[in-house]
Amino acid sequence: MATFYLSPSKSLTIPLQTDLSSSTPKPLVGFRCNLSLPSKTPAVTAEPPPVYSTVKTFAPATVANLGPGFDFLGCAVDGLGDFVSLSVDSLVHPGEISISDISGNNVGKLSKNPLWNCAGIAAIEVMKMLGIRNVGLSLSLEKGLPLGSGLGSSAASAAAAAVAVNEIFGNKLGIEELVLAGLKSEEKVSGYHADNVAPAIMGGFVLIRSYQPLDLIQLKFPNDKQLFFVLVTPEFEAPTKKMRAALPAEIGMPHHVWNCSQAGALVASVLQGDLMGLGKALSSDKIVEPRRAPLIPGMEGVKKAAMEAGAFGCTISGAGPTAVAVTDNEDRGKEIGELMVQAFAKEGKLKAYATVKQLDRVGARLVSSAR
Amino acid sequence: MATFYLSPSKSLTIPLQTDLSSSTPKPLVGFRCNLSLPSKTPAVTAEPPPVYSTVKTFAPATVANLGPGFDFLGCAVDGLGDFVSLSVDSLVHPGEISISDISGNNVGKLSKNPLWNCAGIAAIEVMKMLGIRNVGLSLSLEKGLPLGSGLGSSAASAAAAAVAVNEIFGNKLGIEELVLAGLKSEEKVSGYHADNVAPAIMGGFVLIRSYQPLDLIQLKFPNDKQLFFVLVTPEFEAPTKKMRAALPAEIGMPHHVWNCSQAGALVASVLQGDLMGLGKALSSDKIVEPRRAPLIPGMEGVKKAAMEAGAFGCTISGAGPTAVAVTDNEDRGKEIGELMVQAFAKEGKLKAYATVKQLDRVGARLVSSAR
Repeated sequence: MATFYLSPSKSLTIPLQTDLSSSTPKPLVGFRCNLSLPSKTPAVTAEPPPVYSTVKTFAPATVANLGPGFDFLGCAVDGLGDFVSLSVDSLVHPGEISISDISGNNVGKLSKNPLWNCAGIAAIEVMKMLGIRNVGLSLSLEKGLPLGSGLGSSAASAAAAAVAVNEIFGNKLGIEELVLAGLKSEEKVSGYHADNVAPAIMGGFVLIRSYQPLDLIQLKFPNDKQLFFVLVTPEFEAPTKKMRAALPAEIGMPHHVWNCSQAGALVASVLQGDLMGLGKALSSDKIVEPRRAPLIPGMEGVKKAAMEAGAFGCTISGAGPTAVAVTDNEDRGKEIGELMVQAFAKEGKLKAYATVKQLDRVGARLVSSAR
Repeated sequence: MATFYLSPSKSLTIPLQTDLSSSTPKPLVGFRCNLSLPSKTPAVTAEPPPVYSTVKTFAPATVANLGPGFDFLGCAVDGLGDFVSLSVDSLVHPGEISISDISGNNVGKLSKNPLWNCAGIAAIEVMKMLGIRNVGLSLSLEKGLPLGSGLGSSAASAAAAAVAVNEIFGNKLGIEELVLAGLKSEEKVSGYHADNVAPAIMGGFVLIRSYQPLDLIQLKFPNDKQLFFVLVTPEFEAPTKKMRAALPAEIGMPHHVWNCSQAGALVASVLQGDLMGLGKALSSDKIVEPRRAPLIPGMEGVKKAAMEAGAFGCTISGAGPTAVAVTDNEDRGKEIGELMVQAFAKEGKLKAYATVKQLDRVGARLVSSAR
């Protein structure tokens, strides 16, 4: 096991490892951070040189929970997500990273301090894993996902950043390490859950089996089957605290058995490419959705509208407020989306927009690179 | 929809449909029953003639629960089970069934009244579904499974009987109807659960998705993979009431999410033929096994012994007292079994016997027939 030393500058001596894992981090003074403190699990023994001067990566939106898959299942959605551009930057102190730009709608809330930014935190973790102390990096984040919509916005940023750093240094790390880096980020911004960041990195459906140790199961949806997600996002800020508080602390045995069996059915439907079964499972949650749906104005009517329009199933995406329905046909998906938008307007008095996207089977990826 | 009338004799006018579904049936006077009352779901519109004069069927033992699959998952075990011989018998009143013989170890408790015998109840249900009123049948039950061992003894009898009646009349009914017939039997003797009787009829792994309507998912374990069950049954009567009473009424959210994810992982492992994953899932239950294992003397030590001997996983079969471990090799299975038997002796002061059997992929089947 290699040991990493403080970078020559010793400009920041804050124990970052502790800060990053602490839920109440100490205030920091700059927008850059020292990455050269010891890593718990250094994945490479010698610092790799950058193989590109610049890379651009993409990471997809994700739908977590999926009804009875609450807190352990998620999947990636193609054509919707965040981009990260990353460059070797001699103006950035070696071993450090700087966030130069954040673009996209409504991104004013996002910090450019890498220690407080999901992309920054994940990037820092990957730099730590790689033991980077002689190269400075500059990161630019292009948000394609709205914040707080229930589509894994923070996970997409983290995934794109983790993959970007890994790619610029020659793709030395494995999936698991990238997910762990993403988890560090999620832990800070939305809780220690991998059900968005794992599918954002890996693509497809991912089951989080355990965290200690991290154990992920990729669930392959058959290549010859098509799966479309109808994502309908209302203009409504889901009250995260309320959403969490709405969860029951205790669950009666009949509901536990029911949801467990539906979770099993969901996994079987994914692996068997059974779209009707998948939709049915998606719609079947008796524990979380019944508590959360009433907190999103119109959600119950939206689900009803989706089912009446022929969706195979419908539920809340993540903690909402986006509603997700599934179908096997893009045009049908658009019709379903329109009716769901109408239902949000009628039943929830909310303006909403719909988009129809396919399952993403790839996950976070390199989009372009230059040497 | 066909309507069935009372048989010409009108010898028994007890409303059987009601009696069979009632939890407190009225006492009956004979060992035969009238099958010609209306059936809720007549599956065939004309009474089929028998195509054989006699048939013999087999139905396998089953392992239900499988750790986190509590109350909705089960699988069949080859080479261990019950036989039913069924004959057209002119001495039996048309439309009725008689149990002529029950053989096997320790079967004294079993009633020969078809209304109170698992095989009889299932057979009656199938006769009802087929609308049999002109043929009398005689049934002989050969118990290969010990009662109350947690290996689906009642389900095996019911499955073998249901399939026998269906076969003797030309195999007119589908799997679902046979399972429903088996369920009628299970309802009466051990509760309305299909997690034994469905795999006993269908073979392999079966997920019970719902009862209203009955929705079953067959989970195909890859043909090119071997899966052995080490079944170790102690000489101990598991206290059924205590076993049920030991279940928690309420489950905390973290345990619910954990068990749900393990159930999903179990399903994925079966479909992907991932034996290590399957074993891990089998061993992972945090809700039921921790409550029930202490009620079976030595069980915790037996599980430990199985794992130390190289089993992929181990848990309680059904409600016990049989312990089930999984492995991919018969000889290894025998070694594991010996160590589990030793552990039952040492830790539970119980005599136990071990058997190693493969996954049954076929389910209840015709063994022989004569015209």
